[in-house]
Amino acid sequence: MVDVDAVVIRDVRPICTAPEGIRLVVVKVETNQDGLYGLGCATFTQRALAVVEVIESYLKPFLLGRSVHQIEDVYQSVMLSSYWRNGPVLNNALAGVDMALWDIKGKLAGMPLYQLLGGKCREAAAVYAHASGRDIEELADNVQRFIDQGYRYIRCQMAVPGYSTYGAAGGGRSREPQLLGLGERPWEPTPYCRMVPWMFEQLRGRFGFEVELLHDVHERVPPIQAVQLAKELEPYKLFFLEDPLAPEDLDYLPLLRQHTTTPIAFGELFVHPQEYVPPIRDRLIDFIRVHISAIGGITPARKLAALAELFGVRTAWHGPGDVSPVGHAANLHLDLACPNFGVQEQHLFSEEARAVFPGCPEIRDGYMWPNDKPGLGVDVDEKLAAAFPYPDDPRNGSWLPVRRVDGTIVRP
Amino acid sequence: MVDVDAVVIRDVRPICTAPEGIRLVVVKVETNQDGLYGLGCATFTQRALAVVEVIESYLKPFLLGRSVHQIEDVYQSVMLSSYWRNGPVLNNALAGVDMALWDIKGKLAGMPLYQLLGGKCREAAAVYAHASGRDIEELADNVQRFIDQGYRYIRCQMAVPGYSTYGAAGGGRSREPQLLGLGERPWEPTPYCRMVPWMFEQLRGRFGFEVELLHDVHERVPPIQAVQLAKELEPYKLFFLEDPLAPEDLDYLPLLRQHTTTPIAFGELFVHPQEYVPPIRDRLIDFIRVHISAIGGITPARKLAALAELFGVRTAWHGPGDVSPVGHAANLHLDLACPNFGVQEQHLFSEEARAVFPGCPEIRDGYMWPNDKPGLGVDVDEKLAAAFPYPDDPRNGSWLPVRRVDGTIVRP
Amino acid sequence: MVDVDAVVIRDVRPICTAPEGIRLVVVKVETNQDGLYGLGCATFTQRALAVVEVIESYLKPFLLGRSVHQIEDVYQSVMLSSYWRNGPVLNNALAGVDMALWDIKGKLAGMPLYQLLGGKCREAAAVYAHASGRDIEELADNVQRFIDQGYRYIRCQMAVPGYSTYGAAGGGRSREPQLLGLGERPWEPTPYCRMVPWMFEQLRGRFGFEVELLHDVHERVPPIQAVQLAKELEPYKLFFLEDPLAPEDLDYLPLLRQHTTTPIAFGELFVHPQEYVPPIRDRLIDFIRVHISAIGGITPARKLAALAELFGVRTAWHGPGDVSPVGHAANLHLDLACPNFGVQEQHLFSEEARAVFPGCPEIRDGYMWPNDKPGLGVDVDEKLAAAFPYPDDPRNGSWLPVRRVDGTIVRP
Amino acid sequence: MVDVDAVVIRDVRPICTAPEGIRLVVVKVETNQDGLYGLGCATFTQRALAVVEVIESYLKPFLLGRSVHQIEDVYQSVMLSSYWRNGPVLNNALAGVDMALWDIKGKLAGMPLYQLLGGKCREAAAVYAHASGRDIEELADNVQRFIDQGYRYIRCQMAVPGYSTYGAAGGGRSREPQLLGLGERPWEPTPYCRMVPWMFEQLRGRFGFEVELLHDVHERVPPIQAVQLAKELEPYKLFFLEDPLAPEDLDYLPLLRQHTTTPIAFGELFVHPQEYVPPIRDRLIDFIRVHISAIGGITPARKLAALAELFGVRTAWHGPGDVSPVGHAANLHLDLACPNFGVQEQHLFSEEARAVFPGCPEIRDGYMWPNDKPGLGVDVDEKLAAAFPYPDDPRNGSWLPVRRVDGTIVRP
Repeated sequence: MVDVDAVVIRDVRPICTAPEGIRLVVVKVETNQDGLYGLGCATFTQRALAVVEVIESYLKPFLLGRSVHQIEDVYQSVMLSSYWRNGPVLNNALAGVDMALWDIKGKLAGMPLYQLLGGKCREAAAVYAHASGRDIEELADNVQRFIDQGYRYIRCQMAVPGYSTYGAAGGGRSREPQLLGLGERPWEPTPYCRMVPWMFEQLRGRFGFEVELLHDVHERVPPIQAVQLAKELEPYKLFFLEDPLAPEDLDYLPLLRQHTTTPIAFGELFVHPQEYVPPIRDRLIDFIRVHISAIGGITPARKLAALAELFGVRTAWHGPGDVSPVGHAANLHLDLACPNFGVQEQHLFSEEARAVFPGCPEIRDGYMWPNDKPGLGVDVDEKLAAAFPYPDDPRNGSWLPVRRVDGTIVRP
Repeated sequence: MVDVDAVVIRDVRPICTAPEGIRLVVVKVETNQDGLYGLGCATFTQRALAVVEVIESYLKPFLLGRSVHQIEDVYQSVMLSSYWRNGPVLNNALAGVDMALWDIKGKLAGMPLYQLLGGKCREAAAVYAHASGRDIEELADNVQRFIDQGYRYIRCQMAVPGYSTYGAAGGGRSREPQLLGLGERPWEPTPYCRMVPWMFEQLRGRFGFEVELLHDVHERVPPIQAVQLAKELEPYKLFFLEDPLAPEDLDYLPLLRQHTTTPIAFGELFVHPQEYVPPIRDRLIDFIRVHISAIGGITPARKLAALAELFGVRTAWHGPGDVSPVGHAANLHLDLACPNFGVQEQHLFSEEARAVFPGCPEIRDGYMWPNDKPGLGVDVDEKLAAAFPYPDDPRNGSWLPVRRVDGTIVRP
Repeated sequence: MVDVDAVVIRDVRPICTAPEGIRLVVVKVETNQDGLYGLGCATFTQRALAVVEVIESYLKPFLLGRSVHQIEDVYQSVMLSSYWRNGPVLNNALAGVDMALWDIKGKLAGMPLYQLLGGKCREAAAVYAHASGRDIEELADNVQRFIDQGYRYIRCQMAVPGYSTYGAAGGGRSREPQLLGLGERPWEPTPYCRMVPWMFEQLRGRFGFEVELLHDVHERVPPIQAVQLAKELEPYKLFFLEDPLAPEDLDYLPLLRQHTTTPIAFGELFVHPQEYVPPIRDRLIDFIRVHISAIGGITPARKLAALAELFGVRTAWHGPGDVSPVGHAANLHLDLACPNFGVQEQHLFSEEARAVFPGCPEIRDGYMWPNDKPGLGVDVDEKLAAAFPYPDDPRNGSWLPVRRVDGTIVRP
Repeated sequence: MVDVDAVVIRDVRPICTAPEGIRLVVVKVETNQDGLYGLGCATFTQRALAVVEVIESYLKPFLLGRSVHQIEDVYQSVMLSSYWRNGPVLNNALAGVDMALWDIKGKLAGMPLYQLLGGKCREAAAVYAHASGRDIEELADNVQRFIDQGYRYIRCQMAVPGYSTYGAAGGGRSREPQLLGLGERPWEPTPYCRMVPWMFEQLRGRFGFEVELLHDVHERVPPIQAVQLAKELEPYKLFFLEDPLAPEDLDYLPLLRQHTTTPIAFGELFVHPQEYVPPIRDRLIDFIRVHISAIGGITPARKLAALAELFGVRTAWHGPGDVSPVGHAANLHLDLACPNFGVQEQHLFSEEARAVFPGCPEIRDGYMWPNDKPGLGVDVDEKLAAAFPYPDDPRNGSWLPVRRVDGTIVRP
């Protein structure tokens, strides 16, 4: 048996890599035991270098020599060590350490992390795929392809002609227009709000109601239009409608809730379990969306999952390409162990990313599967990681604004 | 490394023992691995035999052959297997299994349970002692003795002359009076409500305000008198006032809360985390009192602790003599791992009880200390346990009613 | 006239019998008066042996020698004698005694129980029948047959092809599937939610709106889907929709209520009158569903009926095959005496069951009729009862879990 | 007149300096106009290097070439450019730019900033001084000295003997104790809660009620004790009680508000105007405490001040030594221009700091005075600034935890 009290933190290092062009940050916590280390995801891709700075200049000196076992105490003490706590930069850095300590705990225990969280409630986690299209034909083709591959849950996004539309093929983020009247495509809420119900009418007409369909508004419309949209979508029985409102407009949820039974997923931009408390407490949302590294790691995530369970709310952890394979593994372990699992967002990692992160969770038949190695079950090939440096971009990953035709900035 | 997937339940057995005269039920879950077993507390002392029946006739056949690792799934499937779920009989039986599976998990991991729960947030758990007296002198002597022993938290109960008073030396439970005018001592709320503030005035006069004092109303007074009492006690700065209301009168908490800042501990009789949700959600209580085996074990208790943490509520797990040493160990592991620990009720086990349950948590200097063995860290000497059979009592531990002078039954 | 004060309890005995294969528990309270005894239903079929243990080891010694007349005091003193009160095991045991004492009271009075409850408000109790089918044709045939037999209220349940569907012919409880992909049929909420509105559209198309139709969701769908379902069913004018939500999700009732006027029946799993208070107080339900023995007997049931009356809520006592003929009689006496009677669930007992329980209420023309004997009016042939022992099943009646396709447990 | 449309950002540079040993970050925004630049405070002293990283790697490349005039658009576009917005690291960096643009705007207008904000409502801003003491004598001496200097508002903090007490002379932050019983001084809430009312009783006895007294709990006590403390302090008529609750316990404010009229100041740890909305909307606080650079600068601060004015809430901008002289100037301009100014926290900068930042606001007679230069009115001597590098501390300014005697971490 490993002498657990003798295991202390010897190093805390950020690993920066971008095998898919997306800036990932993974934290490696090394111990004084030969070969024993843990990995955690600290990916805040739009501000990766700031997270790295926090890890190197603050977390590393703060944590050297501490026992790897006191995860809760590490979480609390790091959190309070900056006085102003939370925020996506600080939380991602902390999450990297927190996940790495859980990874180490699993390795010391000789168990996959889900075992420490209470064991499996299900064999694999149903995922949702992202279907997108420049028009309804392209979108429908993509939906059909996913259905053929065995997916049961498909998020559908479609371009609004002439506009830069979130999540749509050919409808990506506008380049920075000069204010008013620039060449780049702008975005307008009203055409979008007309398009979406029509899109789902078409999709339900073609595919029926057996497949679960999802949609992400990405907080781009004014509150009352969001309420209207959610109401209009009711006949199409979405599995969930994501982020109909921006976090700043959260208090419109009761109004939305009065008008429609369309299930709501919310919270991807939250950075503290406390932010989830009011909408869960008041039963205003049906699924919590959580970028686990943004709220500080597995320690707060499992408490948040418990809160949600007691209020009948399901989980839908954030899982796009700016969550590293290590973070996807953290999602998956929670998916398997939480009774109130809802659905898991998937990302299909490239061969390169899978080579950098051996043990990356597998997706097949519409499910994500764990590999049953101890801890999180994902490793990193640091040499290979170094072969995929961050892309050369003067803005280092900052998003450009989305603007309306008059130049007004809207949420991204 | 242990092959965790190959470990299944081979037997589920209740162990009945009463080394202190209190009927304890401990569950032993045996596995197909030689020498690997877990223990859990299933003590519902007033209905011990019914719990035993549930374990033997229902849980054992339901669970034989199941993996020891799927604790959450076991919890959910047992819970739902009776359709009518919950209740103290069923939950205690389930808790015995649940704790035993966590004990096994810790042993397989080679770690004390608190390590699996996130590691220690503190080195030991501050406990509160029970001081009681027939009068103020006897009570004050007892308080002084506990202070001299290093206790920082003392619950104070005193007899109301002529009445059968909860928790007071010489003031125990009345024998069953025939209705109206029997020889046994009855109980009346008004003399009690006059006595308690006077008692604390005396105690604060003698001991000052440094020592933390607690009191348990044990739900014996009508709601409005409870509100009055809590209000009158405000100047004496109780650490908490326990159960001023019966669970049936829970909805008087907002009224009580309007009138006084006396901290409230509540919940000892609850049997489902859901019951705690409204008073925690509405911030009506300050401490949760939880007989962990009555709510179904460690699986629900840790979710409940997470809920409480997110609402600023602290834990005060139930810990009298009708929680077995195994149950006390479960309390202690949660005490150490939950950031929102408040205080722990103590019971000083006799030499006999400690011999039956080797590894029973130690209490010294006002703190309860873990022993750092894997799992819960408590074992049972079954042969010795059998030497302490349940006491010979035709009522098998049922409580006799507490009655007022006119014969009216009040809560116990 | 009988000397009532001289009548005391001489024995309390559980009678276990399964003339229909369902484990029934009936309590016989014998008195010191020759031939004077009462019967009560204590059937918690999934945990029958635990109820029996409580009766034999706790209630019998506690009650021997007590007057048969102090029913309320017996109820209170038994309730409090276990400190942790309530729960389905304890309440069923208590209910067996409580009903038996009411039975005795009626016999001593020489009156059917409904007379003691205020006399008949109606001549007979309208019942609802259970129509079920593997498909719409089979279901419609069954509905037609019930209509032809004079039924005015029919509960309709239909199988979802490929799934184990509650209440549907050929759609029974799945045998325990191994997690993910086992041979046994799983259950999924979405196909069910699509089927039900279609089913009622078909039924209303065939049978019109004169016959009252009911449906039982049996708490199997996530809260927001339950709200959607209730809303979609509004055009089909159900008499009631039963258990759209699990008791754990009760606080979604206000949301459901905002979205639909579909009448709601709720409460079958509750075990204390207090649990009914919030939904009745806030007028969130229209019918109380009550397994009378699960809430402790006639004593709490008549208070609950009074509460419901004051809030305009109607009764719909639980009446399937796991309520014994004695329990059905208790339902019926309350049906006849409560002004706010809604409807009565029926069970058509077999010849064997009727032989074991002479006096079992009669059903004809869609009504249940009392027999006007003193007390509950039902007797037991103990010798014959013994000829129908509990079925030989290692799990003793525990339900196997219902699982989704990924292995997740859902409510039963 | 200057051609304003031709003025664009040419450089964005953080200036790191610590003339008083406190790590300050000031942002210099340089323009394409010779000699035209602005300064802003971006001081998050516990994570200064992370703020610097954000400025250099993200804000600078994002903003080069943008017009200095579109302050609101810069604020919105920077905010949204990281997708996860807010948090103290990102907001401080943004605030540095935002203030610098307001400084430039004032210079271009040839006016002190308060003129652009609507002009002076008052001639100078009343400040509060920090009096502290190891005991009541030392504290009273300090209070007397401030009164003699003309201060009308004095914050009073006193050491609790044996404990590490916030804000008290000789009561500073504990060095990291090993868990339980280490040599360093711990902290306990109860002795503190006993001391504070006594302290104010003494102070009011000596100084009467003419001088305004303040106190900062610094969120160190459990919620219910905070309510008690605020209630007990009512007779001593504090000008305000600051941070009786942690931000995580905000929802205890209604309870506090029911029990006492002690004025409450809150919000120092908030990072978004949205966080202030509920307590202001519900009139739960009397003063907003705001570290202006933590919420993103002058742009959000003036909106927040407007919100507060509409709800009768007054301002009390955060102004200790970890707000640079530039930040103090920003506070002061808002103090002068906002009708709902309450009081200003002061910091008496050293000669060195005043030399590094020429134009630092002056304090005399208990008031802070502007210098009436254009813009913020504060400059920086970069050469001298470089002579005060950050102190050599491996932890780079991270706070060590405050712990209770058992090792539990409490808020700082």
